Order: sequence, then structure tokens, then C-alpha cells
Amino acid sequence: MLRVGLVGFSGRMGQLIATQIEKERDLSLSCIFSRNPSKIEGVEATNDWEVFLNQCDCLIDFSNPSLTPSLLQALLKNPKPAIIGTTGLESEAKSLLSQASNLAPIVYATNTSQGIALLNQLVFLLSEKLPQADIEISEIHHNKKKDAPSGTAMTLAEFCAKGRGVELESVRVSGRDGNIGERKSGEIGVMSFRGGDIVGRHTVGFYCEGEYLELTHNATNRNTFALGAIKALKWVVEQKSGLYSMLDVLKF
Amino acid sequence: MLRVGLVGFSGRMGQLIATQIEKERDLSLSCIFSRNPSKIEGVEATNDWEVFLNQCDCLIDFSNPSLTPSLLQALLKNPKPAIIGTTGLESEAKSLLSQASNLAPIVYATNTSQGIALLNQLVFLLSEKLPQADIEISEIHHNKKKDAPSGTAMTLAEFCAKGRGVELESVRVSGRDGNIGERKSGEIGVMSFRGGDIVGRHTVGFYCEGEYLELTHNATNRNTFALGAIKALKWVVEQKSGLYSMLDVLKF
Amino acid sequence: MLRVGLVGFSGRMGQLIATQIEKERDLSLSCIFSRNPSKIEGVEATNDWEVFLNQCDCLIDFSNPSLTPSLLQALLKNPKPAIIGTTGLESEAKSLLSQASNLAPIVYATNTSQGIALLNQLVFLLSEKLPQADIEISEIHHNKKKDAPSGTAMTLAEFCAKGRGVELESVRVSGRDGNIGERKSGEIGVMSFRGGDIVGRHTVGFYCEGEYLELTHNATNRNTFALGAIKALKWVVEQKSGLYSMLDVLKF
Amino acid sequence: MLRVGLVGFSGRMGQLIATQIEKERDLSLSCIFSRNPSKIEGVEATNDWEVFLNQCDCLIDFSNPSLTPSLLQALLKNPKPAIIGTTGLESEAKSLLSQASNLAPIVYATNTSQGIALLNQLVFLLSEKLPQADIEISEIHHNKKKDAPSGTAMTLAEFCAKGRGVELESVRVSGRDGNIGERKSGEIGVMSFRGGDIVGRHTVGFYCEGEYLELTHNATNRNTFALGAIKALKWVVEQKSGLYSMLDVLKF
Repeated sequence: MLRVGLVGFSGRMGQLIATQIEKERDLSLSCIFSRNPSKIEGVEATNDWEVFLNQCDCLIDFSNPSLTPSLLQALLKNPKPAIIGTTGLESEAKSLLSQASNLAPIVYATNTSQGIALLNQLVFLLSEKLPQADIEISEIHHNKKKDAPSGTAMTLAEFCAKGRGVELESVRVSGRDGNIGERKSGEIGVMSFRGGDIVGRHTVGFYCEGEYLELTHNATNRNTFALGAIKALKWVVEQKSGLYSMLDVLKF
Repeated sequence: MLRVGLVGFSGRMGQLIATQIEKERDLSLSCIFSRNPSKIEGVEATNDWEVFLNQCDCLIDFSNPSLTPSLLQALLKNPKPAIIGTTGLESEAKSLLSQASNLAPIVYATNTSQGIALLNQLVFLLSEKLPQADIEISEIHHNKKKDAPSGTAMTLAEFCAKGRGVELESVRVSGRDGNIGERKSGEIGVMSFRGGDIVGRHTVGFYCEGEYLELTHNATNRNTFALGAIKALKWVVEQKSGLYSMLDVLKF
Repeated sequence: MLRVGLVGFSGRMGQLIATQIEKERDLSLSCIFSRNPSKIEGVEATNDWEVFLNQCDCLIDFSNPSLTPSLLQALLKNPKPAIIGTTGLESEAKSLLSQASNLAPIVYATNTSQGIALLNQLVFLLSEKLPQADIEISEIHHNKKKDAPSGTAMTLAEFCAKGRGVELESVRVSGRDGNIGERKSGEIGVMSFRGGDIVGRHTVGFYCEGEYLELTHNATNRNTFALGAIKALKWVVEQKSGLYSMLDVLKF
Repeated sequence: MLRVGLVGFSGRMGQLIATQIEKERDLSLSCIFSRNPSKIEGVEATNDWEVFLNQCDCLIDFSNPSLTPSLLQALLKNPKPAIIGTTGLESEAKSLLSQASNLAPIVYATNTSQGIALLNQLVFLLSEKLPQADIEISEIHHNKKKDAPSGTAMTLAEFCAKGRGVELESVRVSGRDGNIGERKSGEIGVMSFRGGDIVGRHTVGFYCEGEYLELTHNATNRNTFALGAIKALKWVVEQKSGLYSMLDVLKF
């Protein structure tokens, strides 16, 4: 029985993951990290990273960019296999992530669905094969989402930039307003829509003279992400130290 | 035979309109206004508004926001029925437009297609009937387009704002980037994509709990706009002074 | 407290409606009609229409075309306000529906969402205003759905046919294969896709020379239909005898 | 200077290809095959295959399934490098195609665009990687198109079937109507829409539990196909005998 620690229990994804862990025969939810542990009932909870890490064999983090860095700091002292699903990490956090993965296997996944893992591959391929295409990315999520663009959209954009051999931040555009002139060649647009209760839809478009391709992923059920995270967890505990992605988990 | 003056001859729309005028039995292209009249062959051209207006019974303008205001000034002295198709007009130009239309009939049309005229009506209706819906507008045009959002998208957004009884500029959002927090109720997103040779595609979405509606217009052929402009021209010369829209022309 | 009878309890919609009734303060689930009443626990169940109708003040039916006719027969003897949500009814059943609604108020709704009620109106309008447009309807549902096209798609097609003043069945096409020749003017295509766990997406397209409009409704959560059915139920019990639609309930 | 023969001159694609050949420095339109050669002006035309083939170094055929087989018969006697773009070929014609390609290099392309060549690859990949996904293909073309599904949609479906290791015709569905029961696992839907003046849009969807992917190609300008055919022609004349596809031409 694998003891699983959970960071981000009170979020939407955290709730679904906790429910899913209970359904799995070989997993138990051993401890929850929370800034207000007294509010959590039925499971052991703590706001002390050392206590938390000592009670788990591996962990899943779906929290927020202000909490994940302290988790990564703690992992440097007490390494554990981990799934990090928090989006919007700053470069400092990414550096900690890299260090922590030298000591234990970590999957960093801004999206744990199978379809998105495949889409990352496809857009990388098209970015290479269609060097003349104008790339534009669109994402829409429910109106409660606080950050933009989504972590998934940013990862898709990074795969496009990689296919083109450029740094994303030097070509990314997140809005257009006014007399801005013709589109710059090489630009990558990443536009965010918010509305209703949409789980998440991402479209990557490749626009050429005379034709265009648009690749869309639509999540119809948030539980697909929880299932993906559990799949990744079961995989990561069997790996050597290193930083992995969902592509590695899914062996695509 | 109606003598038609044309402003914006060298642009894409100007070229198509000139070609279409030649095909019409009851219309003749009598004069072109151009900053560099010497460059234009085969048709009389001038850079003097007085000369231009004296040679036409009516006119079509598909130029740019820096030229249209001087045309409108000239129309105050020498009123003529006109189609103004220039997008991106500033508030000062809109005020001149209003004054000029007291003296002669003018159709102001940021988009001369039948489908867009209908779409304006539909989004007005939905904005009223679904007060709780999050409204998001998306437009994509070819990579040579210089202004954003498109005039058509702005008009669609204005119909939405009107349906909600709010001022568009107090609720419009044209990009999202960073930790921006939850979507504000009442916000209207208008996002612009640019790529390839796309003539123009506009989508207006109404996102609710449990469901959403998306209404899309796609122009497959730019000539549809030229035909719409000619239709509006033939209509406007029969009208009394006043400011009209394509909805009036099409009697929807 | 209104006593509600439910037909179709074991289906997806039936389950959601039963759950929703329990959450409503002024409603109670008083009786379930089932061919195998012994299998149902916790609520009174019967396979006798007389017993069923005597135990309810009003009823909701989301069952199937082989069961609904016998319900309607029973309602002729013992009239009650009702919501009929069963799709795929034959013409005989529709005739019974009409007779039963002379004796009590009945809402017949192949789709109880607000968005679809509005979409029905919009496509009726466009069918009238764009008489030259080629109309094509597309729907996709999860791979467990047994009938095609969906009742919602058929209702949308009927609104289009009504806008054109034609009988749907004389112009409807449900597949194209082989050397079928050019599209007939006036044809209405209704194509059905099946896949994954999609709750329901419908698109109605109006294709013209130079442009087209596509109106899409997407259900993100099946519960939106249960909420719509409950809303219709609370409304119908206040009405006079007659056959109503969701447009009446929603007062659009 | 390469002498090019053209079959299908009077069709839409034939017209565009003839225009494009005239623009190319190293190509000349040497002869047109036509059933009514007397109707063609300005270029030499014949209804005799021997005369036709003797006057060209290579050829392009965008005609129809009733004419292409006789061309292929003629090529068996007088082999020439060729681009065959005719869609809807029967199995007998495909067998002739195979024989003719033993004697000279032939590109068989139901669609000569770069984007479709890539899309073929992507759907093959996804069909393999997502064995549980329900595959559904949608295509829409202008209302003058006479055959359905489009040759391009059939090729896409064949790449899907290949990715699954099945024969397309044993799993293809081209319409759904009535009480047809649940979707069969492994089915591939190929649905055809017709309307307006749409050049061609194809969507391949992969529908799973909790998520789906939809890949869309849209042709914005028919000339993109003429350019692709010319590109293929210049390539094929340099090749050894054999049957090639656009994937070979584009080296993807």
C-alpha cells in the first residue's frame, strides 16, 4: 500500500484526486498539507512540510505558484517521488524543480490528460514541418480560473517555439488592440477566453496561404485529469531520479 | 447612369469595388480620390476633395481612419449620398459622420455582408435574453491586417453592450496575461487572431452554467463585401438624409 | 408540497431528475413508474398506470418511445400536468400527446435547456431571412445513444423547415454516399456523429455564396437539462390545459 | 521547357492549373485532352489519347472516374510521368493505376495541399496511439460537388483504418437514421455536408472518455491545390517508376 501525500486538497483538482485515491486499492491518502490544517476533517493534515513528507511515500501537488516553491525546498531535504501539477510556476520555482528532480523522480505536468500529451507532440511536429505558418493558440476555461494563459496553453506554445527553435517569450503575444500593424512573422499568439463552466478547450492553429490547420482538444470531464495524475503517480514511483513529462508516462 | 466616386481605390476592397462598378449597367466609376493621383491610370483621379465631389453623384469610401475625416469635412460643404466602410474611426470622425448625415443619406457599415448584419441582430437578442451569460468574441483575419480588433468585431461587441445596457469601453477586454483573478461579471472579451490569408471569421460566444452558444460568421470570398457595398449604394441614393446601417439596407 | 411522479427513473436523465427533486423544498418524489417495480428501492414504484397517476399531482417522463404512448393513454383517463421529455415519438404518440393536452397542461420538450430554446428561435429567424442559404445540421452525442438524429436536432430541423414553409420529411437528408449529384436546393441535411462521452453538441449552418453562419450549442453538464425540466414542471402546474414548449416556459 | 498535357481542362481545378502552367517559366501547356476538342480555343486539343500523349512529356489529370481509366490504359502503351488528381476511382481504375506506375512515375493525390498531406500523417498517428477513441470524420464542400464523401475524406479515413489495422469498408458509416442502437466499437463515421461555395473543410475527431481531439483542415483558396499539383509535377519527372503520394513529394 502506497502512502500518498496531497498538496492542494481544497482545490477542484485536489478534491477529485482525493476521491480517486480512495477508490484505488493500492493507494491510501496518508496526509494533507494545508495552511489551515484545522479546517480539514477525516484525514490527517499539517502545515509543517517535515511532518507532511515523513508521512508519505510519494505525493501529488495541485496547488498554486505561491505554495509549490516551499514544497520543492522541502523536497531538497527529504526527496520523494512526486507529481507536480501546479501551473504558472515562475522561473525560480522551475529551477528548484530541476534541483529536486536530481534527488527523486518527478513528473511535471501542467495537464495530465492523454490527449494533451499527444497534442503537444503534434504541434511540435507541425511547427517544424510548416515553418511558414502563422501559429495562434486559443484557450477557454470557466470563469473562476485566476491565471491566464492556462498552463496547458503555455506548454503547447513552448512546444511550438521548440519546433521553431526560438524562445517563447521573445515571440509570444497575449492580446491585440489598436493600430498595431501587420502581424510579425514568427509571432505566436496565445489568447485566453473565460466563460461559464468550461473544463478546458485548447486550439492550436497553423495559418498558411490558401489553407490552415486547427487542432482542438476539449476536456469533457475534469475527472480525466485526476485519472491521469494517478496513472502518473503509479508510474513515477518506479523510476530513477529525473524530471519527466506526461509523454514519458504515456510512452508516446 | 449614376456617377460613383471611390475613396480607397488602391486597397483590397477598393479594387474589388472598382471591378464590380464596371460590371454594373447603371453605375460608372467617375472619379477616384487619391493622395497620389498621378499613379492611377485609366480613371480620372484627384487629390482635391472639391474636384472629386463635383464629379460624382454618390460615393464609396473604404480607406483608412486618417483619410476619412477629411472626406467627411468636405461632405459638410458638398453633401452626397455615401457608403462609409472605413473601420477604426475615432470619436471625432464619428461626430463628423453624424453631422454629414444630417445633410445627405449615409450608410456607415464596418461590414457590408448580409450574414454579419443578421449576426448583429442575433447577438443583441441573446445578450438581452441571457443576462447571466459570459460574452466572449473572437475574430481572425489575414496577417496583413493592421488594426485590431476588426471593425466588425467591435460592432458585434457594441450590439452585445447595447443588449446589456452598458458602455462597451467600460467592459471590454482585449487580452489576458498573468494572475488576473476571476473573470468579472459583465466583462466582454474581444480577442484578435491574425494568420494566413483568412478573409474574416467572427465568433460570439455566450457561456453559461451547463451550456454555451457560439455563433460564427465566416467570409469565404471577399467579393461578398463588394457586392454588399454596391447594394447599399443603390439603396442609399433613394433615401432621405440620415445615418443608416446595413440592417436598414437589408430591411431585416 | 407537490407530489411528483417519474417515468424513466433508471435512465441517465431520470437519475438526475430524481436527485434534483430531492433537493427541491416544494417537491417530493411520490412514485416511480417502472416495468420492474421490484428492482427499485427507497421510493414507491409500480407498473400500473392507474396506481401511479393516483399518487402524483404532476409528472415527468424521460423514458422511451415504446413506453410513452401507454402513459399518454392513461393520461386521457386521469389527466395531470406533465413534462414529456422522451425523444423519437412516432406520429401516433404525437396525436395522443395532442389529445392529452386538451385535458391538462403538458410541456413537450425534446430538450429542456434554455440555450436550445433560444437556438430554435434563432434558426427559425435565419431560415426566413436567408431563403437562399443551404441549411445543414450536425449533432454529436456519446457513443451509448441509441437513436439518431437526436430529438433536439430534429426539433431544430423542424424550426428550419417551418421558417421555409416546407415539410421537414420532404427535404431531410441523413447521409450522403456515392455519385449523388449536386445538392438539391431546399434540402436540409441532419447528420449524426457518435463518440466518447459527449453530453450533446448541435450546430446549424447556413451556407451562402461568399459567406456562412454556423450556430452551435454545447451542453457542458447534463444537470442543466434536469434543472430545466424542474423549472418547466413548476411552471406547467400553474397553466391551463394545452400543449406547451420550452419557449413558453422560458417566456422568450 | 517541359511540355505538359492536361486532362480535365474545363473543370474548376483544370482551369486553375492551366492558368498556373502559363505562369511557370519552365512549363508549357502543350495539349489538352477533351471529349469535345472543337470547343477549346487557344491551345491544341484532341480526343485521341495517342495524339495527346505524343505531344507531352508529362501530364496532369483532374477529370472524373469515367475518363481516368481510359487515360491509364493509354499510359500502359505510352508511359509518361503523371499526376492523377481525379477522386472517386473504382477498384479497377486503381489496379490500372498500379500497373501504369510500374512503367513511369505517378503521383496519385486526392488532395494536393501540403496541409492535407500532414493531416493524413497525424490521423494515422492518433489512430494508433488512441486505440480506444471513437473516430468520426466530417467534410463540407460547395453545393455543386457531385460525389460524397470527398476523395480527401476517404483518404483520411483510409489512414485511420490503416492506423487501426482494419479494412475501411468494413467499418465505415456514412449516415445514421432511426433506432440504430449504440455505436459499434471500431466504427469510422464519414459524414458529408454540402453548402454555399465552401472550397473544402475536413475534420477528424477522436472521442474518448473525458476528452476529445478534433483536427480540422480548411482550404481558403482553391489555387493552393493548383500550386500543389505543379509542385508535384516538377518533382515526379525526376523520379523512377513507381506510385507516389503527396507525402513523398513534400518529404514529410
